[in-house]
Amino acid sequence: MIIRALDDVEAIFYAEGVKKRVVIGPKEGAPNFAMRVFEVSSGQRTMWHAHDFEHEVLILDGEGALIDGEGGTTQVKPMNVIFIPANEKHCLKNTGSDTLRFVCVVPTWGEDSL
Amino acid sequence: MIIRALDDVEAIFYAEGVKKRVVIGPKEGAPNFAMRVFEVSSGQRTMWHAHDFEHEVLILDGEGALIDGEGGTTQVKPMNVIFIPANEKHCLKNTGSDTLRFVCVVPTWGEDSL
Repeated sequence: MIIRALDDVEAIFYAEGVKKRVVIGPKEGAPNFAMRVFEVSSGQRTMWHAHDFEHEVLILDGEGALIDGEGGTTQVKPMNVIFIPANEKHCLKNTGSDTLRFVCVVPTWGEDSL
Repeated sequence: MIIRALDDVEAIFYAEGVKKRVVIGPKEGAPNFAMRVFEVSSGQRTMWHAHDFEHEVLILDGEGALIDGEGGTTQVKPMNVIFIPANEKHCLKNTGSDTLRFVCVVPTWGEDSL
């Protein structure tokens, strides 16, 4: 088993104002899926993209908006869960003044894709 | 996409003093893995068990102890992450006075196993 504090996992650059921690992934021996935790600074957002694998997201802190493939937005807040099926365009934007933090789980083979 | 509040997902009985919410799973169309959120009442614990699939856990609230196959315990707290590989015996016990809440992701084929 591996037990560790989130803050002990190295935060890596993902996009401008966005950090990613791969808290459990292929390096830890995860065979099927990877858990990542993202931090998005106020006013910033993740890439607006689509890919051939799903996201399972839980918002931990902050306020944000999920932007869909047609530019529609839905406000999200802590303890909101989001399922983004494969091939649906999306991004998450921080619409508040504090850091937006969320868990995002993907298949291991999707972990290194941006 | 599916966006909803954790509290809007039905909480189901898992064990004495333990509730489970399958926030994203096969019913939502998740193809590979399922995200569940557990709540364990003070003094209670999940089943002490092993199974042939992995757990990826993030502690959200409360204080607890992870008990391993030899009865060894490790204290856990919010924003601790835990990777439990397949076939390693384990349980999570609430050692605090408030509810212990955590996210636990499993392969979809493991979701209905206790």
